[in-house]
Amino acid sequence: MTVPSVPEPAAAAPAAVFPAAAGLLARVREERPMVHCLTNPAALTLSANVLLAVGAEPSLSADPETVRDFVAGTSALVVNLGMLDPAREAAILAATEAAPELGRPWLLDPVKVELSPSRRKFARRLLARRPALVRGNAAEIACFAEGGDPRTLACAAGTVVARTGPSDLVTDGARTAEIANGSPLMAAVTAVGCAASALAGAFLAIEPDSWTAAVAALLVMGVAGELAAARARGPGSFAVELLDALYRLDERDLLERGRVR
Amino acid sequence: MTVPSVPEPAAAAPAAVFPAAAGLLARVREERPMVHCLTNPAALTLSANVLLAVGAEPSLSADPETVRDFVAGTSALVVNLGMLDPAREAAILAATEAAPELGRPWLLDPVKVELSPSRRKFARRLLARRPALVRGNAAEIACFAEGGDPRTLACAAGTVVARTGPSDLVTDGARTAEIANGSPLMAAVTAVGCAASALAGAFLAIEPDSWTAAVAALLVMGVAGELAAARARGPGSFAVELLDALYRLDERDLLERGRVR
Amino acid sequence: MTVPSVPEPAAAAPAAVFPAAAGLLARVREERPMVHCLTNPAALTLSANVLLAVGAEPSLSADPETVRDFVAGTSALVVNLGMLDPAREAAILAATEAAPELGRPWLLDPVKVELSPSRRKFARRLLARRPALVRGNAAEIACFAEGGDPRTLACAAGTVVARTGPSDLVTDGARTAEIANGSPLMAAVTAVGCAASALAGAFLAIEPDSWTAAVAALLVMGVAGELAAARARGPGSFAVELLDALYRLDERDLLERGRVR
Repeated sequence: MTVPSVPEPAAAAPAAVFPAAAGLLARVREERPMVHCLTNPAALTLSANVLLAVGAEPSLSADPETVRDFVAGTSALVVNLGMLDPAREAAILAATEAAPELGRPWLLDPVKVELSPSRRKFARRLLARRPALVRGNAAEIACFAEGGDPRTLACAAGTVVARTGPSDLVTDGARTAEIANGSPLMAAVTAVGCAASALAGAFLAIEPDSWTAAVAALLVMGVAGELAAARARGPGSFAVELLDALYRLDERDLLERGRVR
Repeated sequence: MTVPSVPEPAAAAPAAVFPAAAGLLARVREERPMVHCLTNPAALTLSANVLLAVGAEPSLSADPETVRDFVAGTSALVVNLGMLDPAREAAILAATEAAPELGRPWLLDPVKVELSPSRRKFARRLLARRPALVRGNAAEIACFAEGGDPRTLACAAGTVVARTGPSDLVTDGARTAEIANGSPLMAAVTAVGCAASALAGAFLAIEPDSWTAAVAALLVMGVAGELAAARARGPGSFAVELLDALYRLDERDLLERGRVR
Repeated sequence: MTVPSVPEPAAAAPAAVFPAAAGLLARVREERPMVHCLTNPAALTLSANVLLAVGAEPSLSADPETVRDFVAGTSALVVNLGMLDPAREAAILAATEAAPELGRPWLLDPVKVELSPSRRKFARRLLARRPALVRGNAAEIACFAEGGDPRTLACAAGTVVARTGPSDLVTDGARTAEIANGSPLMAAVTAVGCAASALAGAFLAIEPDSWTAAVAALLVMGVAGELAAARARGPGSFAVELLDALYRLDERDLLERGRVR
């Protein structure tokens, strides 16, 4: 028996997902939404470059005094709790207060809440402010979801939850999609998960249905990751190829490679 | 009709620019000036790597209490306002006070002043301290230049102004050069403009005429960008190739590719 | 006479070093130790990616209030003084107090102490807390070692000292090894030295004898650097190839390329 290096597309994929994702990607490239990312220092560069690779524009200022100006001047907000410190905490509170007033959707990425009780407490406070989307890995989502089931968090918090890993699951409690793309090399480069959150911010900026936006963003990221892995010799070249793949990705790639059910 | 991927050199280039730029690049590689960059967290790595690629040495500390030591120990100062926060603001004030006392030239990169009134105000305060060079994109320069004309800012502030974009313009009010090199991929990688400022810092460190230093630095960056774009498949590989091109660039590349008028 | 681009292995290498280093690398890949790095913003991404490339896990939070949680949740601590500011200084003091209480080995990387008297003073305070390993370049080590001899620092501070450069020297005062691998391109990419410290943290996490851990880490880094340089066109591609080489490195590479005496 041979293991194919490129998995075959799932037979049972919901046919509507691929053209929807391709349509949203085309709109990101055309409308070039600005996305404000309050993210950790190790994720700044890759998050900005992932946004630029799909045609969106990053904005990164994290000063509590002026962050409202930047939320006002951009179309979506991404809040990442990695390497949290008091100044970014204050900026996050100011920004997530401003975002609903200004009609901006926002996303919460609760990085490593499983390692720090105080960060977990802060994340709960943010969940009560109703992000449009929560994206995390299994350990992070399990901190807030009974039995580790993202659906319980989605229902309890009234948000869409995206749990990423070997396969990604996106749910609003009622609708659930599983995306089985990506590559193990994505876990061998720092901040790829954070950058997936930034990318989801670009899709939230143009698509009011957060579930559809999240499915499209993770499908784009997963297929780009697979294309990148096929050309990479290791994590160094993978990171380079990932940006090139996001930049070059087209509808046909999504149709041929996407595995959604 | 075919569109050539590599533009032809301009016929009317001022002949003196190319050997002057090549001579300065050779001196940077030989003298290895240390450049202190007070820049935003998303620009630190690329700025440092661009300096290293041409043989200069980056220095990056931003603590207000000790920044004077670092200005004293280096040959030029680069001040970048991206992601400004109170601590870096204090460091910038201390450093731009120390620089003229210590005889160090300094450059102002007024990142995204168009998005924040308080940052614009801070930039005006710095302009009054007479940087040797201001480098920004069209929107940033337009905040300080009547009618968007960099010459008016150069005259009013008594500085050299470099406005970068699809083509770059460098002016001291009297002398003006236009550099028509570069690639659209430069705008698809974060902090390439910030890194161009860092590179200009290396040229300011060895050339007292800021206009000549700025023209040389932007010509080197533009030609390297063109060479990199010719080998790149997208923004990921472009960033890699840009550093390699800066490292390998020689006088012949500048002569054959440079488009200055 | 021809100069071979790949140096020949030293005839007199201590035979035990190579299988020991290969064995430790295999254990890092299997046990995946988490390493907490309190490092400078310009070194975060490369340090994290070097750790991930060998299978270890980076942790990077630098908030003084919560850093103890992260030291407790990880297996070794790396303290880097580049771009030091008061917040990271406080985090470093809290972390280096917690580390011995929690039984975690820690490493000191005294970046650019030669440029700042206050940083030098802080480094002395940390040396008195007895790091398991000090890694620095010649100028940094010379600040604490009489006559620049790392052995005197090792004896005086009761620590292992690794002085890196064109060739690396690792000593605990009694045992001394010299590693003559690496490439000049390592000095043309920012934070490669900082990333070598992070890598040494992964080896300290699994090997209680700090001298053996440091020799193994620097041998792995040096051989990976040589393999990367052989494929690189300049510093941009070198950084990419370095991560790929660390990811792919095997015992045979160490045996064939390693030059230790």
